[in-house]
Amino acid sequence: MDSAYRPTPRTTPTRYRDRASYERQTVHGILDEALICHLGYISDGRPVVLPTTHARVEEILYLHGSTGSGPMLAAQPSGLSVCVTVSLVDGLVLARSAMHHSLNYRSAVVLGTARLVEHPDEKLRALNALLDHIRPGRAADCRPPDARELAATALLALDLVDVSAKVRAGGVSDELQDSTLPHWAGVVPLTLTAGTPVPAEDLDAAIPVPVYLR
Amino acid sequence: MDSAYRPTPRTTPTRYRDRASYERQTVHGILDEALICHLGYISDGRPVVLPTTHARVEEILYLHGSTGSGPMLAAQPSGLSVCVTVSLVDGLVLARSAMHHSLNYRSAVVLGTARLVEHPDEKLRALNALLDHIRPGRAADCRPPDARELAATALLALDLVDVSAKVRAGGVSDELQDSTLPHWAGVVPLTLTAGTPVPAEDLDAAIPVPVYLR
Repeated sequence: MDSAYRPTPRTTPTRYRDRASYERQTVHGILDEALICHLGYISDGRPVVLPTTHARVEEILYLHGSTGSGPMLAAQPSGLSVCVTVSLVDGLVLARSAMHHSLNYRSAVVLGTARLVEHPDEKLRALNALLDHIRPGRAADCRPPDARELAATALLALDLVDVSAKVRAGGVSDELQDSTLPHWAGVVPLTLTAGTPVPAEDLDAAIPVPVYLR
Repeated sequence: MDSAYRPTPRTTPTRYRDRASYERQTVHGILDEALICHLGYISDGRPVVLPTTHARVEEILYLHGSTGSGPMLAAQPSGLSVCVTVSLVDGLVLARSAMHHSLNYRSAVVLGTARLVEHPDEKLRALNALLDHIRPGRAADCRPPDARELAATALLALDLVDVSAKVRAGGVSDELQDSTLPHWAGVVPLTLTAGTPVPAEDLDAAIPVPVYLR
């Protein structure tokens, strides 16, 4: 398998082409780190963007939904044209000039036709991937879905083919003539930080916080 | 002005209606806290979702872009049908059952027709709002855009009319019969945390970190 996705007209940006990347490793890293994605599709001729959870299994992106929700219904029977975008914000970039303010970020865009996952085996595989996406190891440490629960879960699958990433990293890029202005310039790093796990009120006190949450 | 937005068919969720909110205060809080939004629109009959920055000025949402980028071109002359979604992730919800795993989150969805901001005064107002959205006080503490820079900036404006929020907060909601299973259950709080500001390499060492970054 190539180490990079093949750029297409739709994944070639009109702006900041130097920020674009098609490396599988970069794209996978973004998809795997982000906890949510934004699923875009067309409903009644108008755009809809919903936040949902996702998980990657090799070159398939699974999206979580539930039977009866808009995109799941729309995906039947022939698939749904979607744009799935995943974004991570890494920092505030404060330049001396208003114009050069920016964010450090990593984003990935996946275009294609999403299909409804129908086979119970694939459903279970996707659900386990979603659980392990929350924290690796969680799928094996909870009660698996029963047949009724599995039937009530709807999942979309999207092949990673028409894919691109965009990354802005590093420092401020002010104009040379602005470099002596008396304004602070630099980057404020941002991180999504996990706090101390809060056990359910009725949790048996003998059950310790699992290793994968520490 | 009413304290809440008026629900419409498009902003009434098909699922988890108890999580929906139309309160202005809730919606404004989400829009104002989130650093980025996801802008959905239709291009050549297919959905596109782009991450970008935004800022709210009373009941207008401004979206940052640049001349020549897709949505800005598409917005001329009659406006662009968009869905702007903003999402904040507040925690991982780990239930004893696979099925009840969830995230705590707050999201807002704004539907409507975005117009290109054309008047230089409004452009400047929107840009200042974007700067103060990064950190309140920043707009007054940097070099304002000159005429050329202002011309190179494209902004969309979207009235806050067809608006809704969705909030999931609190603890685990397992089935009663699962409450004695031997799996840890609870919530891992998540926060976007700002690290120590990193000054630009060529920053005059006499310029202190501004109060609004401390």
